[in-house]
Amino acid sequence: MVLGHATWQEVRDLDRDTVALLPTGSCEQHGPHLPLLTDTLLVSAVAREVEKALPNDVLLLPAIWLGASSHHMAFDGSMDGTEVAYAESVRATLACLATHGFHHTFVLNGHGGNTSYNDTACRRHKAAHPGHVVGHSGYFAWIEADLLDKTLEGPVKTIRHACEAETSLMLHLHPDLVRMDRARDDGLATVPPVPGLVWHFDECTEEGSHGYATLATAEKGRALFEASVAGVTAAMEAIRQGVALFPAEH
Amino acid sequence: MVLGHATWQEVRDLDRDTVALLPTGSCEQHGPHLPLLTDTLLVSAVAREVEKALPNDVLLLPAIWLGASSHHMAFDGSMDGTEVAYAESVRATLACLATHGFHHTFVLNGHGGNTSYNDTACRRHKAAHPGHVVGHSGYFAWIEADLLDKTLEGPVKTIRHACEAETSLMLHLHPDLVRMDRARDDGLATVPPVPGLVWHFDECTEEGSHGYATLATAEKGRALFEASVAGVTAAMEAIRQGVALFPAEH
Amino acid sequence: MVLGHATWQEVRDLDRDTVALLPTGSCEQHGPHLPLLTDTLLVSAVAREVEKALPNDVLLLPAIWLGASSHHMAFDGSMDGTEVAYAESVRATLACLATHGFHHTFVLNGHGGNTSYNDTACRRHKAAHPGHVVGHSGYFAWIEADLLDKTLEGPVKTIRHACEAETSLMLHLHPDLVRMDRARDDGLATVPPVPGLVWHFDECTEEGSHGYATLATAEKGRALFEASVAGVTAAMEAIRQGVALFPAEH
Amino acid sequence: MVLGHATWQEVRDLDRDTVALLPTGSCEQHGPHLPLLTDTLLVSAVAREVEKALPNDVLLLPAIWLGASSHHMAFDGSMDGTEVAYAESVRATLACLATHGFHHTFVLNGHGGNTSYNDTACRRHKAAHPGHVVGHSGYFAWIEADLLDKTLEGPVKTIRHACEAETSLMLHLHPDLVRMDRARDDGLATVPPVPGLVWHFDECTEEGSHGYATLATAEKGRALFEASVAGVTAAMEAIRQGVALFPAEH
Amino acid sequence: MVLGHATWQEVRDLDRDTVALLPTGSCEQHGPHLPLLTDTLLVSAVAREVEKALPNDVLLLPAIWLGASSHHMAFDGSMDGTEVAYAESVRATLACLATHGFHHTFVLNGHGGNTSYNDTACRRHKAAHPGHVVGHSGYFAWIEADLLDKTLEGPVKTIRHACEAETSLMLHLHPDLVRMDRARDDGLATVPPVPGLVWHFDECTEEGSHGYATLATAEKGRALFEASVAGVTAAMEAIRQGVALFPAEH
Amino acid sequence: MVLGHATWQEVRDLDRDTVALLPTGSCEQHGPHLPLLTDTLLVSAVAREVEKALPNDVLLLPAIWLGASSHHMAFDGSMDGTEVAYAESVRATLACLATHGFHHTFVLNGHGGNTSYNDTACRRHKAAHPGHVVGHSGYFAWIEADLLDKTLEGPVKTIRHACEAETSLMLHLHPDLVRMDRARDDGLATVPPVPGLVWHFDECTEEGSHGYATLATAEKGRALFEASVAGVTAAMEAIRQGVALFPAEH
Repeated sequence: MVLGHATWQEVRDLDRDTVALLPTGSCEQHGPHLPLLTDTLLVSAVAREVEKALPNDVLLLPAIWLGASSHHMAFDGSMDGTEVAYAESVRATLACLATHGFHHTFVLNGHGGNTSYNDTACRRHKAAHPGHVVGHSGYFAWIEADLLDKTLEGPVKTIRHACEAETSLMLHLHPDLVRMDRARDDGLATVPPVPGLVWHFDECTEEGSHGYATLATAEKGRALFEASVAGVTAAMEAIRQGVALFPAEH
Repeated sequence: MVLGHATWQEVRDLDRDTVALLPTGSCEQHGPHLPLLTDTLLVSAVAREVEKALPNDVLLLPAIWLGASSHHMAFDGSMDGTEVAYAESVRATLACLATHGFHHTFVLNGHGGNTSYNDTACRRHKAAHPGHVVGHSGYFAWIEADLLDKTLEGPVKTIRHACEAETSLMLHLHPDLVRMDRARDDGLATVPPVPGLVWHFDECTEEGSHGYATLATAEKGRALFEASVAGVTAAMEAIRQGVALFPAEH
Repeated sequence: MVLGHATWQEVRDLDRDTVALLPTGSCEQHGPHLPLLTDTLLVSAVAREVEKALPNDVLLLPAIWLGASSHHMAFDGSMDGTEVAYAESVRATLACLATHGFHHTFVLNGHGGNTSYNDTACRRHKAAHPGHVVGHSGYFAWIEADLLDKTLEGPVKTIRHACEAETSLMLHLHPDLVRMDRARDDGLATVPPVPGLVWHFDECTEEGSHGYATLATAEKGRALFEASVAGVTAAMEAIRQGVALFPAEH
Repeated sequence: MVLGHATWQEVRDLDRDTVALLPTGSCEQHGPHLPLLTDTLLVSAVAREVEKALPNDVLLLPAIWLGASSHHMAFDGSMDGTEVAYAESVRATLACLATHGFHHTFVLNGHGGNTSYNDTACRRHKAAHPGHVVGHSGYFAWIEADLLDKTLEGPVKTIRHACEAETSLMLHLHPDLVRMDRARDDGLATVPPVPGLVWHFDECTEEGSHGYATLATAEKGRALFEASVAGVTAAMEAIRQGVALFPAEH
Repeated sequence: MVLGHATWQEVRDLDRDTVALLPTGSCEQHGPHLPLLTDTLLVSAVAREVEKALPNDVLLLPAIWLGASSHHMAFDGSMDGTEVAYAESVRATLACLATHGFHHTFVLNGHGGNTSYNDTACRRHKAAHPGHVVGHSGYFAWIEADLLDKTLEGPVKTIRHACEAETSLMLHLHPDLVRMDRARDDGLATVPPVPGLVWHFDECTEEGSHGYATLATAEKGRALFEASVAGVTAAMEAIRQGVALFPAEH
Repeated sequence: MVLGHATWQEVRDLDRDTVALLPTGSCEQHGPHLPLLTDTLLVSAVAREVEKALPNDVLLLPAIWLGASSHHMAFDGSMDGTEVAYAESVRATLACLATHGFHHTFVLNGHGGNTSYNDTACRRHKAAHPGHVVGHSGYFAWIEADLLDKTLEGPVKTIRHACEAETSLMLHLHPDLVRMDRARDDGLATVPPVPGLVWHFDECTEEGSHGYATLATAEKGRALFEASVAGVTAAMEAIRQGVALFPAEH
């Protein structure tokens, strides 16, 4: 069920084992060729497809687009929720879901910068509701290394920012919003030389994108998208049916 | 320009007199016949039409859907941003706009419960940026009393909640999301007997709606919608061109 | 009963249907002729008179004078509670009243800048205590348009700031604090050209006052004052006796 | 100068070496015989007298009455600012004074429960404005032990709560608000057996008062009051003239 | 029991009348001859000795070293917890102790700048847990004036900052961390000329120390240390056995 | 240089390219055999060894022991900084370092539950100081998979909680604090069946430990410890010398 399109009585009648699924994105620069809302559009598309696959088992919330993007603020149009606005939006949403009796909640993330806030929001929610099943992860976590390796042609075999993978996903889902003539490869390293360094995108890119966008195709995008949808769908189904967190075996 | 669909370089190239327009809505019960996202859908439609009319003068932001809805929480599916999440989201958005050099900002509201938070957010923004032109108002503020009086057939001649007016607007814009067979008139009073009382919707409605939804038509909705769009467009144009706040005359 | 003059045992013995009445004002510039504490003095006088009329039905609290006045800070001596100090003071006061068992509370406001904060404080209080009757309004809300129209001679027929109406009220209540020789009319417009714009007083006045202060008289002030007192008294009486929020009729 | 009675232009014309003096009190139970506002009334009276003695050197602010009184909440009518409301009110007031250019500020306290908050507020203010002279102290700090010893007849030779000293001060200043027929001595210890213990008044009094209220007289009150006024006046004068914090000697 | 060295099962098995003892210090300049962690080292040593004396009656927590030191920030290496970090750390620690069932808690302080925050933290904790015994005090509060008078040779007969007393304590406990060749006497006054003034150390010292450090000896330090340990031990024992806050007598 | 043992003048004289190193740990249950302070002890030992290797290039801060441990609160003695206390402590520490001119800062973490807070604190710090080099990582991040694989005998080849690896490290560093007779293997799964689930330790362990503690030896601990020290040392050296975040190559 799509929450925003439902009436309150339809929500009232839902089974409370339903998994409430909150997509989180961003509105931040994605290089010269992708629109600012890219992360929100991608995660929303995955989440929508999962809801279509499991209409009775998933309650899909609207996406939060005002993500945590302080590392992009040097680029015009990037909107940073600051940690307060973003983190509190996730928390308030989770809290309302609990108020309405939903005890299975999952935050599906489309923007790496949100990860730590999603984690702290979910942990706070879990502390307030110890019996609930609560989780968060990027939609990209279900696109396995093997598939990336096989699908991506450029030397960067992970999903970075406005890269071959993200551009492919956008070509598959929103080709009208991609300026392929502006796509470029910057050939810069995509990981810092010391683990754990925090960086701003104007320190490590030339025009805001990472990786090999010129190699993107809609076909590659479709492959990655379908893998993500399949993985998230299976995960939501498992939560819906009641996971035993740590089954006794090894 | 639609911010979410633009690239950062396109935003960079915008004239800074452009009016940044932020729609704010809610996700809360709208009676048995309208979807939870009604306020967000309506204000987004008005704002989108204004942007179409003034593509070079308006920068349209994505809508904030997690509004201030504590007075609806007795109804399933209503999401309350609590004051922190909602107010901080508006504030962070305004602050980012200022960071990028935009000094004309307007919050277009679709949900009465947001009004006080929009006011305090705008006042804080103005205090931080005294030279900026900052404003907020409901899209409904431009639908004049005369038009409402003429258009609405029921005894309630104002825009309430899931009422004749809102239902008409939805029939005009999103007929597929209206369950007209569930629409009902509750005939209850719509204002409290003592001015200033704060109320919850479960104290003053039977199923969450106010007024005479059964009288709604798409045609009425179109009339109200066009009036709002025309009014907001003129206002944004005036701000774009530089209003003198209080011209010397009377 | 005046809370500040009572002992705790006298409060203990009060009927809990008593309406707790909290006046809220400001300490901010009021043009060249009125003192900074004008709003606090006026609302306190109205509230005190209401308490005298209903000594057994109203519990009058001391006024909060540190209002929300960021729009006056360009004028020396203006004190701005900032939103935190002011809003939290109202909230804490309401919370303590609930702790002591009072379930009828009303915030009587003397300063327009406080309105949004009073609203959010009352809504938060209501959310925490859904069964309580909670409200807020300006003392001026009970001075009806007809009376203003008839009483005020200048072209501005509403209560603005350090204007004909406020100056008249001060001449009636605190003539010793009015510098009538400094009063002036600035003839400027008192509403912005676009609805909803947020303004600072140094953008729209010459010396901090609005309207036609030279036309003020104590007699006019008495008429407005008595109208307000009568209206607030009736409202408090209604709350004391238990209003049905939305009686079923139209 | 009394801030609340001044116009903004009069404040504008003040010398910025003027000492801004903020009285802080409480609204909390004071036993069966003193009114809830006792602390606010007493500190306001001292501060007002100081301003009369130094009209050109002191800018007197309105008193903050919503003090920090969590330890009195078991008694009806006590209002607790909670730490947020109270501390932020002091902070906002100090900040506004700095905005208007005042660099000599003193918080004169009438309620022991406020002391730690006044300290942290002043320290934060000092950290933000290192060059300013900032201080806080109880009005009672200037009533020396010798005088207390000589003046008070009961065995408790300090100022406690609704005790011989406070009741005497009230008899001197507000005899109409004292219910002497309700005054009582409880004979309980007034200090805890282990230094530093935090206590609530319902743990250590019978009806909320400490000490020997029946011994109070207006004459004693006058002596204590005059000592406090003289001491505070001298201190304000010293600050006005520019204290060297730690003159080089010993 | 030392909390940090215990297992959770050992804590589980503790009697809940045990006094939880939290030492609080600082990391701030202590003149040219003492290390930044001086306050933390001293209070930890006292607390550890108390725990050794009462191993079954005291649960010793690790020290909080990030104290409130805004008044030292002009000196390199000083770390200021700001009020949020420090105060919240004390509060969170007390709250966790209550969660685990401990109802006797004492904060033993080694840094004057922490006092007000310890007070507000303890008061908030007490308000949340009215039946608990909660206290806070400096370890130096148990070193009586007589002993100081007899032990200290310089003209300053109190414990100040990096002074004769503190340097002696460090010579007794951590002689390897004292640079006695850098010790100096600055001969400056150690109290401000007006009571209650808030000061920064760069306003009132030459190199950050107060008083007569050159007179310090390990022997003096031992005397002061033993007095403090004896006093705190007795106090903890009294709390452990259940103090009656205000026994009825005088 | 060890900050806590230095004087302010020694810190003043440090080269500002020095890397400030902040260890962060926890005080939380570590099964029946390890002490509550395990994480703090381990990370402190690594950090101390790094400082010994690079005494002129690293400024070692005291460890923050009050970590984020809400997921352990079901076990007695666990202390949870709550997100406010912990996160603000890291933030305040980083902010003070910047105040004193240090622009190379690294948070070395010993407790997985702190990771997201360290990330948000570092990102906020970076946003405030865009030119600084700021990073955070677990000390365990430098113990490579190969070494773990080779060193650990049990089936769990990663560092979990009170497991073979942590117990070995403690046997190497603090054998006196390990109760090997209480060590146990629970054989439970150590990862949840759905990625991203948030869990509490009482949901997935029997006595708070994960993995195969009985297989721990001091020799294994030494190997892991030395690997971590070597890795962190190299990283600090690189930062000290000025890393180019993203050198241009691939």
